[in-house]
Amino acid sequence: MKRVGISGFGTVGRRVADAVEMQEDMKLKGVAKTTQSATASKAQHNFGLYGIKDSHMQDMKSSGLSVEGNLRDLCRVSDVIVDCSPSGIGAQNKPTYQDMDVKVIYQGGEDVEVADISYNSYSLENDGINAENIKSARVVSCNTTGLSRLVKSINSSYNVERVSATLIRRGGDPGEISRGPINDIVPTMEIPSHHSSDLNEMIPEVEVSTRAVKSPTTSMHMHSIEIEVENEVNASNIKELLDSYNRICVIPSKYEEVRSPADLRELSRMEDRTFGSIWENTVWGDSVSVSGNYISLFQGIHQRSIVVPENIDAIRYLMGESISDSIMETDSCLNMGSLFR
Amino acid sequence: MKRVGISGFGTVGRRVADAVEMQEDMKLKGVAKTTQSATASKAQHNFGLYGIKDSHMQDMKSSGLSVEGNLRDLCRVSDVIVDCSPSGIGAQNKPTYQDMDVKVIYQGGEDVEVADISYNSYSLENDGINAENIKSARVVSCNTTGLSRLVKSINSSYNVERVSATLIRRGGDPGEISRGPINDIVPTMEIPSHHSSDLNEMIPEVEVSTRAVKSPTTSMHMHSIEIEVENEVNASNIKELLDSYNRICVIPSKYEEVRSPADLRELSRMEDRTFGSIWENTVWGDSVSVSGNYISLFQGIHQRSIVVPENIDAIRYLMGESISDSIMETDSCLNMGSLFR
Repeated sequence: MKRVGISGFGTVGRRVADAVEMQEDMKLKGVAKTTQSATASKAQHNFGLYGIKDSHMQDMKSSGLSVEGNLRDLCRVSDVIVDCSPSGIGAQNKPTYQDMDVKVIYQGGEDVEVADISYNSYSLENDGINAENIKSARVVSCNTTGLSRLVKSINSSYNVERVSATLIRRGGDPGEISRGPINDIVPTMEIPSHHSSDLNEMIPEVEVSTRAVKSPTTSMHMHSIEIEVENEVNASNIKELLDSYNRICVIPSKYEEVRSPADLRELSRMEDRTFGSIWENTVWGDSVSVSGNYISLFQGIHQRSIVVPENIDAIRYLMGESISDSIMETDSCLNMGSLFR
Repeated sequence: MKRVGISGFGTVGRRVADAVEMQEDMKLKGVAKTTQSATASKAQHNFGLYGIKDSHMQDMKSSGLSVEGNLRDLCRVSDVIVDCSPSGIGAQNKPTYQDMDVKVIYQGGEDVEVADISYNSYSLENDGINAENIKSARVVSCNTTGLSRLVKSINSSYNVERVSATLIRRGGDPGEISRGPINDIVPTMEIPSHHSSDLNEMIPEVEVSTRAVKSPTTSMHMHSIEIEVENEVNASNIKELLDSYNRICVIPSKYEEVRSPADLRELSRMEDRTFGSIWENTVWGDSVSVSGNYISLFQGIHQRSIVVPENIDAIRYLMGESISDSIMETDSCLNMGSLFR
């Protein structure tokens, strides 16, 4: 039984906690956070609550919560910590993890140097066997996770030469009421955007050019993608190939009511999934088109949940288990790919 | 003196009317529209008001407006009609123009077959001399106008081989309060979008792939563009080249307050321009980047005003005059390119 601790109980932390509890080979030992709050109370009742520092413990205790200890205590009872802190805080926690000699998974908001390797399940050449010596992994960001899965899948059957993508990012998550933009599209002036080097961490052999804008939406990221492959292809073969991966959903043409991210969010709430998660890349089948050796398509990326399966796999990876076995186990546990079945 | 009539007095019609009045070689003979309204009253006072049909004349007269006649009457006193009707209505007016043997300019919302030629000033190989036999021109849409100017400009110095662009379209104009989307990005499933064939009407020799989404904004369209040229280039040369065209503004890095379409709209209102028009392509200089023989950039396109200079040039073109002379005259009249001077 793999003993898992989670530090940070925000958007990603609570979804990873939920998914860990669904795995038969994992035991969630507790969640460490900084503040007393409604979610701290839920953590206390469901998993066991820790403070990151002693001062956080004191605050939480003063407000009547029962607290098991601090982050060091959580490390002591865990084989792997999944750090789901806000961007940059993972790096601040790193000395504690090193000191406690615990394996750790960081999120994509951290700099690439924070961990021994950057991680996406579909992009791992080494199958994880003999990965016991790897101490830490950084699960790449939601956008890069979506790009990695897609490009790696196509690359498995066709030789991908170049990826050109525009990422139309959601401005903030629902509830992040102070973020923008409103009624504006804000381009990220740096071209290529940071997603290019991130994707190259996963797939070094492909030429990548990404451009990013922020949009006044909250539901999902939208990717407008063109992929150049070595030889001519046809669209139905591409759709069939993508659909063969559990972590990529091709939205069938017949579902005319699923034309946008908002439609996808509504559909996902009809599934038996906590938080209405969409763990899969969602590719509009009608948009998949081919001209010579260029493949174009639109895909939606649910920023809040897409990295969850990769975090679960990364736990097994750091414990030296086979990634391909883990993918099968995670996908089966989460009933991945069920959205359009 | 070229006698110009305008049919349709919406977003484009009123901006073209304003620009026609600024030209020394043109006389605005009147504006034809269908309904009595606040803008009909303005047309009556400023230019002379016509009804499209007799019934429209009667309606406007009943509401106390003074009306000069119907569309046929306007054709009778005009050398060129600029049809600025809503999409599809231009085609409905076509029999009247043919019957009255008047030259006519249609807008990009009409099908390509409506006119003898599709038109963009920068894309015309034939300089307009001996164009007297051409009866009608269709000024391509705002998005295609912006793409045509950009690609043609780069193609003048570098051999453009391929254009790949994602058009993040504004959902509606300010005031179009019933349009969407709200809080959603809606992809146009057809790839390539219609802008590809439209751009190829202007520049047939270039391979084009466009993808389009609708966004919950009203201010401007945003283009995320990649252009493949024959040989390696460098970014400063590209910026210098683009900046040498009056109809393309390269936003200087030093203007840090101009990072989005909303910023551009505010800046344009500080100019001496009716409607705060932005007739130019607006390219963010900081976004212009080069990798080998790929050029990437973001440009903003003001959907309400960018086609105005092309409509003015097209009037002279249909009258058999030189396009290069017209471009100079229009640019000077409108003080084009002044945004960042």
